Amino acid sequence: MAPSKSTVLIAAVAVFVTQASAAGTVSYNGLAITPQMGWDNWNAFGCNVDEELLLNTAQKMVDYGLRDLGYYYVILDDCWSNGRTANGTLQANATKFPNGMPYVADQLHSMGLGFGMYSSAGKYTCAGYAASLGMEKQDAQTFADWGVDYLKYDNCYNEGQEGTALVSYNRYKAMSDALNATGRPILYSMCQWGQDNPWDWAQTIANSWRMSGDVYDSFDRPDSRCPCTTYDCTLPGFHCSVMNILNKAAPILNKAQPGAWNDLDMLEVGNGAMTDDEYKTHFSMWAIAKSPLIMGTDVTAMTPQTLSIYSNPAIIAINQDPLGTPATRVWLSPAQPQNETYSTDSYTVGEASFWTGQLASGDYVAAFVNGASSPTTLSASMSDIFIDLLTTGSNAPVPQISQTWDVYDLWANRMSNATAQAIIMGNYTLPTNASSMSNSTSTMPVQTYNATAMSYADGLAANETALFGLKTAELMPGGTVQAQVPAHGVVVYRLRSQGGGAGMRKRDEL
Amino acid sequence: MAPSKSTVLIAAVAVFVTQASAAGTVSYNGLAITPQMGWDNWNAFGCNVDEELLLNTAQKMVDYGLRDLGYYYVILDDCWSNGRTANGTLQANATKFPNGMPYVADQLHSMGLGFGMYSSAGKYTCAGYAASLGMEKQDAQTFADWGVDYLKYDNCYNEGQEGTALVSYNRYKAMSDALNATGRPILYSMCQWGQDNPWDWAQTIANSWRMSGDVYDSFDRPDSRCPCTTYDCTLPGFHCSVMNILNKAAPILNKAQPGAWNDLDMLEVGNGAMTDDEYKTHFSMWAIAKSPLIMGTDVTAMTPQTLSIYSNPAIIAINQDPLGTPATRVWLSPAQPQNETYSTDSYTVGEASFWTGQLASGDYVAAFVNGASSPTTLSASMSDIFIDLLTTGSNAPVPQISQTWDVYDLWANRMSNATAQAIIMGNYTLPTNASSMSNSTSTMPVQTYNATAMSYADGLAANETALFGLKTAELMPGGTVQAQVPAHGVVVYRLRSQGGGAGMRKRDEL
Amino acid sequence: MAPSKSTVLIAAVAVFVTQASAAGTVSYNGLAITPQMGWDNWNAFGCNVDEELLLNTAQKMVDYGLRDLGYYYVILDDCWSNGRTANGTLQANATKFPNGMPYVADQLHSMGLGFGMYSSAGKYTCAGYAASLGMEKQDAQTFADWGVDYLKYDNCYNEGQEGTALVSYNRYKAMSDALNATGRPILYSMCQWGQDNPWDWAQTIANSWRMSGDVYDSFDRPDSRCPCTTYDCTLPGFHCSVMNILNKAAPILNKAQPGAWNDLDMLEVGNGAMTDDEYKTHFSMWAIAKSPLIMGTDVTAMTPQTLSIYSNPAIIAINQDPLGTPATRVWLSPAQPQNETYSTDSYTVGEASFWTGQLASGDYVAAFVNGASSPTTLSASMSDIFIDLLTTGSNAPVPQISQTWDVYDLWANRMSNATAQAIIMGNYTLPTNASSMSNSTSTMPVQTYNATAMSYADGLAANETALFGLKTAELMPGGTVQAQVPAHGVVVYRLRSQGGGAGMRKRDEL
Amino acid sequence: MAPSKSTVLIAAVAVFVTQASAAGTVSYNGLAITPQMGWDNWNAFGCNVDEELLLNTAQKMVDYGLRDLGYYYVILDDCWSNGRTANGTLQANATKFPNGMPYVADQLHSMGLGFGMYSSAGKYTCAGYAASLGMEKQDAQTFADWGVDYLKYDNCYNEGQEGTALVSYNRYKAMSDALNATGRPILYSMCQWGQDNPWDWAQTIANSWRMSGDVYDSFDRPDSRCPCTTYDCTLPGFHCSVMNILNKAAPILNKAQPGAWNDLDMLEVGNGAMTDDEYKTHFSMWAIAKSPLIMGTDVTAMTPQTLSIYSNPAIIAINQDPLGTPATRVWLSPAQPQNETYSTDSYTVGEASFWTGQLASGDYVAAFVNGASSPTTLSASMSDIFIDLLTTGSNAPVPQISQTWDVYDLWANRMSNATAQAIIMGNYTLPTNASSMSNSTSTMPVQTYNATAMSYADGLAANETALFGLKTAELMPGGTVQAQVPAHGVVVYRLRSQGGGAGMRKRDEL
Repeated sequence: MAPSKSTVLIAAVAVFVTQASAAGTVSYNGLAITPQMGWDNWNAFGCNVDEELLLNTAQKMVDYGLRDLGYYYVILDDCWSNGRTANGTLQANATKFPNGMPYVADQLHSMGLGFGMYSSAGKYTCAGYAASLGMEKQDAQTFADWGVDYLKYDNCYNEGQEGTALVSYNRYKAMSDALNATGRPILYSMCQWGQDNPWDWAQTIANSWRMSGDVYDSFDRPDSRCPCTTYDCTLPGFHCSVMNILNKAAPILNKAQPGAWNDLDMLEVGNGAMTDDEYKTHFSMWAIAKSPLIMGTDVTAMTPQTLSIYSNPAIIAINQDPLGTPATRVWLSPAQPQNETYSTDSYTVGEASFWTGQLASGDYVAAFVNGASSPTTLSASMSDIFIDLLTTGSNAPVPQISQTWDVYDLWANRMSNATAQAIIMGNYTLPTNASSMSNSTSTMPVQTYNATAMSYADGLAANETALFGLKTAELMPGGTVQAQVPAHGVVVYRLRSQGGGAGMRKRDEL
Repeated sequence: MAPSKSTVLIAAVAVFVTQASAAGTVSYNGLAITPQMGWDNWNAFGCNVDEELLLNTAQKMVDYGLRDLGYYYVILDDCWSNGRTANGTLQANATKFPNGMPYVADQLHSMGLGFGMYSSAGKYTCAGYAASLGMEKQDAQTFADWGVDYLKYDNCYNEGQEGTALVSYNRYKAMSDALNATGRPILYSMCQWGQDNPWDWAQTIANSWRMSGDVYDSFDRPDSRCPCTTYDCTLPGFHCSVMNILNKAAPILNKAQPGAWNDLDMLEVGNGAMTDDEYKTHFSMWAIAKSPLIMGTDVTAMTPQTLSIYSNPAIIAINQDPLGTPATRVWLSPAQPQNETYSTDSYTVGEASFWTGQLASGDYVAAFVNGASSPTTLSASMSDIFIDLLTTGSNAPVPQISQTWDVYDLWANRMSNATAQAIIMGNYTLPTNASSMSNSTSTMPVQTYNATAMSYADGLAANETALFGLKTAELMPGGTVQAQVPAHGVVVYRLRSQGGGAGMRKRDEL
Repeated sequence: MAPSKSTVLIAAVAVFVTQASAAGTVSYNGLAITPQMGWDNWNAFGCNVDEELLLNTAQKMVDYGLRDLGYYYVILDDCWSNGRTANGTLQANATKFPNGMPYVADQLHSMGLGFGMYSSAGKYTCAGYAASLGMEKQDAQTFADWGVDYLKYDNCYNEGQEGTALVSYNRYKAMSDALNATGRPILYSMCQWGQDNPWDWAQTIANSWRMSGDVYDSFDRPDSRCPCTTYDCTLPGFHCSVMNILNKAAPILNKAQPGAWNDLDMLEVGNGAMTDDEYKTHFSMWAIAKSPLIMGTDVTAMTPQTLSIYSNPAIIAINQDPLGTPATRVWLSPAQPQNETYSTDSYTVGEASFWTGQLASGDYVAAFVNGASSPTTLSASMSDIFIDLLTTGSNAPVPQISQTWDVYDLWANRMSNATAQAIIMGNYTLPTNASSMSNSTSTMPVQTYNATAMSYADGLAANETALFGLKTAELMPGGTVQAQVPAHGVVVYRLRSQGGGAGMRKRDEL
Repeated sequence: MAPSKSTVLIAAVAVFVTQASAAGTVSYNGLAITPQMGWDNWNAFGCNVDEELLLNTAQKMVDYGLRDLGYYYVILDDCWSNGRTANGTLQANATKFPNGMPYVADQLHSMGLGFGMYSSAGKYTCAGYAASLGMEKQDAQTFADWGVDYLKYDNCYNEGQEGTALVSYNRYKAMSDALNATGRPILYSMCQWGQDNPWDWAQTIANSWRMSGDVYDSFDRPDSRCPCTTYDCTLPGFHCSVMNILNKAAPILNKAQPGAWNDLDMLEVGNGAMTDDEYKTHFSMWAIAKSPLIMGTDVTAMTPQTLSIYSNPAIIAINQDPLGTPATRVWLSPAQPQNETYSTDSYTVGEASFWTGQLASGDYVAAFVNGASSPTTLSASMSDIFIDLLTTGSNAPVPQISQTWDVYDLWANRMSNATAQAIIMGNYTLPTNASSMSNSTSTMPVQTYNATAMSYADGLAANETALFGLKTAELMPGGTVQAQVPAHGVVVYRLRSQGGGAGMRKRDEL
């Protein structure tokens, strides 16, 4: 039998769409039916946290339209603590949080945002503060009392409680149970770095699980401190590059499902050490992998380019697609021979890869990644795109391969720097309806989306233009999708069947 | 000491046939003395199950002679459930099974078939339905009450109870004990994907154990979701190709024995994404590996070619041979250089391999597999064929190497498409005695077999022609067996000593 | 700190010989102060056991002088059982053992031999008979009552009690404690195939531990059923070749010490599928690795060549050396390019290796192994030979490198076929004193040794000629040892310092 | 989140120096805030221990200025024991320690030195003496009663209590708790060879943990008994070369922090089997890796060259830097093609590597290692040196890359052989103030340091010349650091920003 729900859903949707599974969602607490979105201070600020940082950031998230794009959780990472009170209750550092945590929660809630908190399943947090191993019930209640909506739960100083699935499961389940016992809905984000195969057992106790060591602001530079190159790793480490994590994730992406996601770690987009193409690749692949999308940069100092990546609604719509099926890496090729006249870095790993994933509407996402340091042309056949339909084990016909598909380039309508700059300067009024451009002519680029006004699921169903990029080609039966992919870059397409815009719906009528 | 019963049997039979082991069978419940055979809906239908599908399929299994070839169990896979009643009893989905499960069991039993059921050693089944971890006794009793004869027991949502042999053993033993406690004979099929070395410990608690991730309808395409290429795998995954599983299985095949089999997963024969040669290879190698033979296609829509593969009695007779000794991979060669003018696919792994196995009668099975995408000629010497006799650690003579052997090609007498089509159309009366062709002239191909009328053991002993393919060559002492093997194809021979038709018997007289 | 006693002894002996360690022997029961020697029926007879086989073999062991060479234990392997009596006591198969086990023990004891018994730390023995997991105390008492002197304790059907060191340790400790509790000295031989690193923990509970899957009668043929090539192996398997086991053993040999030995498995010498050179290599390397030397052939049908290998006292004296330090593989080279005109097999692994080990007397053993299929010349410098002295971490002088050493070829005086044949025919009277040739002229080859009359330790101290082969060269300071090594062959030298015959003694005077 | 405290500190110091972490030190007992220094007898003397050796060595440590350089602990290794008294108390061998252990402690304390003791978390010590598993409380109290200040706690004969992190953690925690319960401050040095990932869990129970098998006196010779080349190793073994250990350590170095260090094993400097360059590399890399620096040679017979390596205060000041951040291997290159005309050995592994680390003052250490057997020129760009600042995930400016840095060669002012010889002969009066040369003219080489008079932290803050080697170059913005590195050699630089001598301080003002 197939090893995960999402696999079953693929098969179920592909083959028997008219008869949906009667099984309820597996999400253990009903949260994160699509991958969580938000912001976390760690990547950009580390230990340098305080109330002001959180509230200023939150305000900008509202002002820049990021909240309405779906970035909901404002997550306070390590170093907020002043240890415990005499009765053992965790207490905030009063210098950093002079008004206390409940005040922060209230302020965020009043802005329409959720409040994320941090602790560790260990004796100390990674920065050496009091953590929650053995104190799960008391700490979960404290967090609930504070109005917390989200817990990132780390793995440092775990007192040897690692090394087998069961000991790790029990350690993380203790907090899972404790959070549920509070009665407050709190999204539970395991930060356990993929040790002991959490993708095998975390779905019933958490909403997401980290599957690797910490990301850093590099596209593909190998670092001694992130020694593994495969998912099966006893030293997750840190300073893992975007490509390192992406390749580790490929075999386990399908373990995710609505309510339970692989977390590829927080986004480095905007932090300065990667190129714009690299950040686009990073953001796109995290999105189609159904990773949580947690911004990890200084929102208050965002450049227009950074804002326009985080704000691409066509990419986010893939991430938030209701089907909740991560894309699959269909193939991975060795590096193209380097172009002697052009080389952007010296660390290139260099694989080219092709990824596809099914979407709720019967559309498909198809992404080309160029890991080499020179631009290249990559292509994929219909057999590549529909390989999972062609090998489902049923000799039923696969109508998709005889259809014509519209090809939408999901980065074609990226927000212009001028618009982004205007937003940052406060000179641009964001729409209160779903999409500012949904009624525009096709020559004017669609730039953003308001998911508060209309959910991605509803917007996709309503064919909101902002969620579809720009149609740039047609794929004929037996044809090939092609893309010019920049060095360290990505091209992401949404494929829509011309037969009513949804290949699957058409097939349902068979 | 040799690590498994079957090894001992090899040695015992080879060296000391006159003195059989006094040890009783190890089968923990007396079932599956030869590998189980049947049909399971998953590969072709996934979650799309109901009473009608099972009963229609069962009727065709009877009509097409498949039941009488030995395909006994009709196995209902995941998605049949509607959760539990108030008192915790599992209940069937009433829409899919309007007459309840006991009715299905009764109908199948009345057709001379067994009823297979599905659950998981986890919190949920893989499709998210209620499963049996912690509910083993109650659920086993429910299955027994329903008239179930077989349980496929999956591994999803296992709550961290994996990672060491002992925790996996205990989890699967709980259901083993519960099934036995019902008093009803229920074949127990562990679907645990080979985690934690079940081939070391499952023989005393189960009748078979899966040894890899899920098969899919591909001969050799690597897929990101089946990342391992060896038996020792912490991420079994799915979308494992036929060649991937076969090569993983080679080192552990000898761990099987009567009553306890390696399960290479259900057959994909007939599902449309492999060639006829690939399906023949798949079927043949599963058979000689002593894997359970579980049809995984839509029986009601079988093509003649598909039926004629599933119906090859000469291959099935290898699988059901009373000795119960899996074949061994004698050698594995790298891919032959590709023929530039002929290439059937782009994923070729390409190894050529040679396999042999001893049979109860003193016969041997010898199989050549061509993994390359061009046809090739493969050969094996007597030292290859009898390597295990030559290296048993005894300097006793090996009479087999000085005998002359008749070489029977076990696919030579494959049922014709015309016959198969006639059977499918209901225009052909299948024999009620063992073999329709057993009294035929040698120019008329033998086509099928009725194991209900005469067991394979008895048929083999009686030299029923249908079980021996077609004699195509003789192997002289010091000679070489040769085969023209198609791309992705197989040639399977049965070798019979001319000294009375059984090398071992002759030797017994020494 | 160094990880094992033997390491400490190396350092201690090398650097501080004048001050012996005050620590007592670590042997948990005082037995096996040198590696056990004997005969086990499995390799040659498998399940085909009975009283007659044991007693006939024992008589020949006495007659051929094998007992007096040190082969003391006559070990009955699997298949002797008829299950348990009503009160749970193990009982022998009365057909095979009509006079019962105590009779066998008495007979063996009366011949001056020890009686070895077999069981498994599992539900069944490997051949499917009742075994001792959970019945340790009762079965150990039964064995003691029968007069058993040795227990080989296997690993089949272990009910999932494997996978971590602790669960394996506890399983094997149960029998260790039970044996000790009987009060009878019973050598305890763990047959656990090296799972879970027994070399880390077995010294305090057993006298030896198997460190690999089962050997078979092949020098270097890879077999699918022995898939590992390193010590760290989750599927030990069987059909492991001599070279496979030897290379697996190299990193762990030093874990042995007096009373606790790595068991490389029983000898295949004489079973017919290897050449005489291959058997010499097998026997020599097992000996210098300090493996137990358990004959595994049909003693009653021994050829003269076989007898003359098992009877080489110069090689056995290395194995039984009082220091108990296994040799070390100093270097391992890839295969020499094959000589196009000479190739003995097609499976050659082909490494050449050089091994050295220190002996109690200050002598050294030095062995060259040629894994290639052509003869070759191998050589080693004094830095190779004395590498451990040169890198002990002490800048003290290493007098050995400035001494002149006599080089004794330990196979030069191998018993002649004529002599061996005479012994087999009963036409040769073996000496009752230590060595038949100890007073002979140097032109007459020394052929055998009587360790019953004088222990190897005493014989070595007394410079019994039979223990030293033939002096064939001198090694000058700065010189090189050279050997012409046949294909798949070995050359074994004993190096004796000319300064009194013992390098170490000389050094003690410094 | 970052996986260790030191990582956090890197980020914290680099980005937010003005706001120090409020978290206290994680050192579980307040000891080893910088890596411990001292001497242990094992590498040079093995089991050959007695009172005289310890006290004579201690006296020389005082006389040669080694104590005042920081070598504080005099550690008695294995073989001191005479087992236990009737009531179970460990007792010293009265021949070796005629005045008892408290006397030794008193003598050492009176010399201003600490007393280190040895036991094992097993049934026996590695040399077979009584050890402390199961006797932790009683033995810890004995050690405290004796006046012990340090415990080296080994891993031999561990009774199967290994194989998962939790079982190893619990075994070592038992002694950790027992030591703390005595009330005496005792530095706890785990000698567990890196099994089961101690770098994940030892910080809260110990002051250091060995991370590999035992070192031996070889730069890079592979030895069969140290089979692993990566940190993840089930057979740590011994005879691990300097380069073997260094490369294993690279991925885990960052797991250290003040109070909890990776132990790369005791130093072999001076033991005779490596060249002077090799010993300099060994000493330098252990120092910048923040390994404990435990001398492992015969201090009473030190050569001038040996003394001048152990006495380099500029290297020790890196090891004892208050920030406590281990260096990182920035890159590792394959061996340079061998120079045909110059080859020092035949075992060359040959990698060149570049390492950097941040220091408390804002300085950086930068080290080039040449593993090849020929000298070579190696260089590193500012991007190499400041890679961690450039990829911290913050787009804040990195002022370091636009500064000019003074480059100090930390081996340039190595003590001359003449001076060292004078010290050894007692003909040189060592300074009682911090540095004999701190007021000297720049043409006179600085030679030693007295950390008893002024701690390294204070000396660094005071710019004591002895701690800074010799300025040999300047690194301009965008420039490159270059070094001529001898075969098997090292070049270690300290980089100081010209902007006030501390890059970080300057940055703090931003």
